[in-house]
Amino acid sequence: MSDFDRLMAWQRTTEALGQVAGRTGWDQEAIMPRGSAPQRAEEMAALEEVLHARRTAPELGELLAKATAPDAVGEANLREVRRSYDRNIKVPADLAAELARVTSLAQGQWAAARAKGDAPAFLPVLAEVVRLRREEAAALAEGGDLYDALMQDYEPGGNADQMAAMFDAMRPRLVALRQRALDGAPAPRLSGDFPKAGQLTLAHEIAGAFGYDFQRGRLDLAVHPFSSGSGMDVRITTRVDERDPFNCLYSTIHEVGHACYEQGVDAAHLLTPIGRGASMGVHESQSRSYENQMGRSEAYCGWLFGRMRDVFGDIGLTSEREFYRAVNAVRSGFIRTEADEVHYNLHVMLRFDLERALIRGELEVDDLEGAWNARFKADFGVDVDTPANGFMQDVHWAVGLMGYFPTYSLGNLFAGCLMAAARRDVPGIDAGLAQGDPSLATGWMRERLQQFGALRLPVETIERATGEAPSAEPLLAYLEAKFGDLYP
Amino acid sequence: MSDFDRLMAWQRTTEALGQVAGRTGWDQEAIMPRGSAPQRAEEMAALEEVLHARRTAPELGELLAKATAPDAVGEANLREVRRSYDRNIKVPADLAAELARVTSLAQGQWAAARAKGDAPAFLPVLAEVVRLRREEAAALAEGGDLYDALMQDYEPGGNADQMAAMFDAMRPRLVALRQRALDGAPAPRLSGDFPKAGQLTLAHEIAGAFGYDFQRGRLDLAVHPFSSGSGMDVRITTRVDERDPFNCLYSTIHEVGHACYEQGVDAAHLLTPIGRGASMGVHESQSRSYENQMGRSEAYCGWLFGRMRDVFGDIGLTSEREFYRAVNAVRSGFIRTEADEVHYNLHVMLRFDLERALIRGELEVDDLEGAWNARFKADFGVDVDTPANGFMQDVHWAVGLMGYFPTYSLGNLFAGCLMAAARRDVPGIDAGLAQGDPSLATGWMRERLQQFGALRLPVETIERATGEAPSAEPLLAYLEAKFGDLYP
Repeated sequence: MSDFDRLMAWQRTTEALGQVAGRTGWDQEAIMPRGSAPQRAEEMAALEEVLHARRTAPELGELLAKATAPDAVGEANLREVRRSYDRNIKVPADLAAELARVTSLAQGQWAAARAKGDAPAFLPVLAEVVRLRREEAAALAEGGDLYDALMQDYEPGGNADQMAAMFDAMRPRLVALRQRALDGAPAPRLSGDFPKAGQLTLAHEIAGAFGYDFQRGRLDLAVHPFSSGSGMDVRITTRVDERDPFNCLYSTIHEVGHACYEQGVDAAHLLTPIGRGASMGVHESQSRSYENQMGRSEAYCGWLFGRMRDVFGDIGLTSEREFYRAVNAVRSGFIRTEADEVHYNLHVMLRFDLERALIRGELEVDDLEGAWNARFKADFGVDVDTPANGFMQDVHWAVGLMGYFPTYSLGNLFAGCLMAAARRDVPGIDAGLAQGDPSLATGWMRERLQQFGALRLPVETIERATGEAPSAEPLLAYLEAKFGDLYP
Repeated sequence: MSDFDRLMAWQRTTEALGQVAGRTGWDQEAIMPRGSAPQRAEEMAALEEVLHARRTAPELGELLAKATAPDAVGEANLREVRRSYDRNIKVPADLAAELARVTSLAQGQWAAARAKGDAPAFLPVLAEVVRLRREEAAALAEGGDLYDALMQDYEPGGNADQMAAMFDAMRPRLVALRQRALDGAPAPRLSGDFPKAGQLTLAHEIAGAFGYDFQRGRLDLAVHPFSSGSGMDVRITTRVDERDPFNCLYSTIHEVGHACYEQGVDAAHLLTPIGRGASMGVHESQSRSYENQMGRSEAYCGWLFGRMRDVFGDIGLTSEREFYRAVNAVRSGFIRTEADEVHYNLHVMLRFDLERALIRGELEVDDLEGAWNARFKADFGVDVDTPANGFMQDVHWAVGLMGYFPTYSLGNLFAGCLMAAARRDVPGIDAGLAQGDPSLATGWMRERLQQFGALRLPVETIERATGEAPSAEPLLAYLEAKFGDLYP
């Protein structure tokens, strides 16, 4: 057995254990009995201990030093293992343990403080998380940019200067589009009776139509929708709000996008380091393509209008066009996760600028709320009413996920590139969507992008799929055409 | 930190990982998507590899050599770790991993072949499992009896020669009782409409009344009912046959007996080696006490008769006595899990003799179906109609559980001892059961047996609870009194 084969065998066991850890997390969120929590915390810690030991094992380092790949797929696998190993051995064990302990506690403290809108209770907790993440970033960066160092976990090759330039170029056009929409005629709203059973039946039907393979997955309920797992067991969750069926349906389509990416990776890469999505940004390009570019298209809304009336009877809207306007309503709001396509990236840019400044030491936690509120007023034209609707709304910072937010907008940007290319390559995408059938677009995604997993780095993954370097222009052109039409 | 404390900390992580492995098995049986099976086999093998490595780690051996227990609980924990360590260092890691992989796949292959009654599809799978288990038995036995060696995993201290002697002594009295029943007036049968939803509602209600804690467990559907997990997450499954509600209800009570044992262990033993049932035989004493001695008692049947009429309306029986006779009908049948109390041990004896011969190399897999069918004809007077009703009916052999079957009859024997003692100690057990309330008996079990977990070895566990050495006499006396009354 060659060193390379021995390394891949070692890694395969690690990947399999990683899948078990992920599914144990799924179980915890989706179906675990309430009283099991203390024991489950010990189980998760035990799994993490085993995984961390495997990922930093001296024998893995020795194999990495000696192994040579037999081909391009092998090289990509070595690249992924090496990145993980180098990253994990740079962080001192006591710092990693302290980060795990503090962020685990901080999550609960954040939830309690947010429920009361109590910023002073949260600030010392956040300050400690920021301090530890700065320290980790310094260990990882080895003299380079601290924020870039953190971002590599979510977006390998990502560069914050380039992202900032891109976001700065998008911002004035999004602000102008937002103003135009808010000055226009208000969108109509759904009304009617949307029982849970009907929503879930429709969610299952739509998930299947978008290509989700229920033979290798399940759809369950959870507080926060998510997708979990790779390869042959990729599970998704959704939630039901009986007053707002769009919450369930579009959450489902979003998670189906993530899950189809994982299910779509070539089976030859199963349980190998490249047998998963290339990055958070590329992942989000799939969920956003499915949810927004396909699911919220005028063509698909035409079909969904009829199907929802079949399932729910009167929904308070009487034409496909009215329904399309309701689905794509642009409204001011404090909450990122509820934002429309026009506002969404403005939410992300705000967080990106602030967390980057925090990590670089250009902003302190005590000044964060003021900075947030000033920026929100400037970009959204509204005063934040309570920190729970402001800088405390997301769990990300409490659990130390600085560097993650920009991947959401990067995903939107990639989705713009991908869907422009798909529409160029494949005639009839909208004709299919108008029949409730997204398979021409989802088939293109699988063929051009999903099957390759993490074979290539994120930007190259997009370039290979579309034939050109990613840029913000396709997304902006799409948004301006769509919302220019909706808000003439 | 003392060597003992270090050993217990090491073991706690192992126990936590063992719980994860158990729950991954539950997931596979109860809710896993069909197409996930190949990946799951690798995940189970990876977990088994990690667990095997921890259970055979040189540092564990060193700690075991040095550690001294501070008290009796500590000594019991050392005893359990030592037995596991001694057992596991005898089995090569690659054999343990191969067994995990093969049995994980075999389970799905068994289910598919059984559904079609396709013995030729199953035989090569079973032959491979038998081959690997023989190899494992040879490693464990070190020249001793192969079958005894396998049995130690399920019944520490168990001895197949002693069991064979016991079974041979029970057999004539059971055969006589069976003949008496089959010669008597046929028992009446349920008839009516028993929808799934009603059965599951009643199963949940009854599970709660027997003491199952849903805050630390779940009840789901699976092909083969089972209980899984220890401590704070103990899950059970049941199945529904719309023509036969007793299938669901008594399977549920049976699994509740197992689960209440695990949930009833003193919380101080959580994630320690003694924080679980003492053996499979003692476990089965709980499930059989709950299912048969309580659930099929004349008193409980009186209550259940009324409750089933509340839920299902007309059930085709008009008196408590008729219902009691229907619940305890003695009939020839192919399926062990559906057998009455008189036939049940005859089913077990058949399997015990065949699997003992398989492991000892006195019977080959190709001859198994013929041997089964001949023995069945001899003991039950009936020709097996399809392998799904014959040697393929149980999952046990497909997953390598040779040595497990005799613990079922041992459990019946222990249950006879325990319930005779409980009825002697606690007045009013039957008065409670007549109100649908088994808590006097289940409370006695928790107090006298369940809370101690594996603090003591199986036979001592029963002796401490009852005050005397276990014997078959209480079970036989119970059966002869009960079925003598039912078939006068």
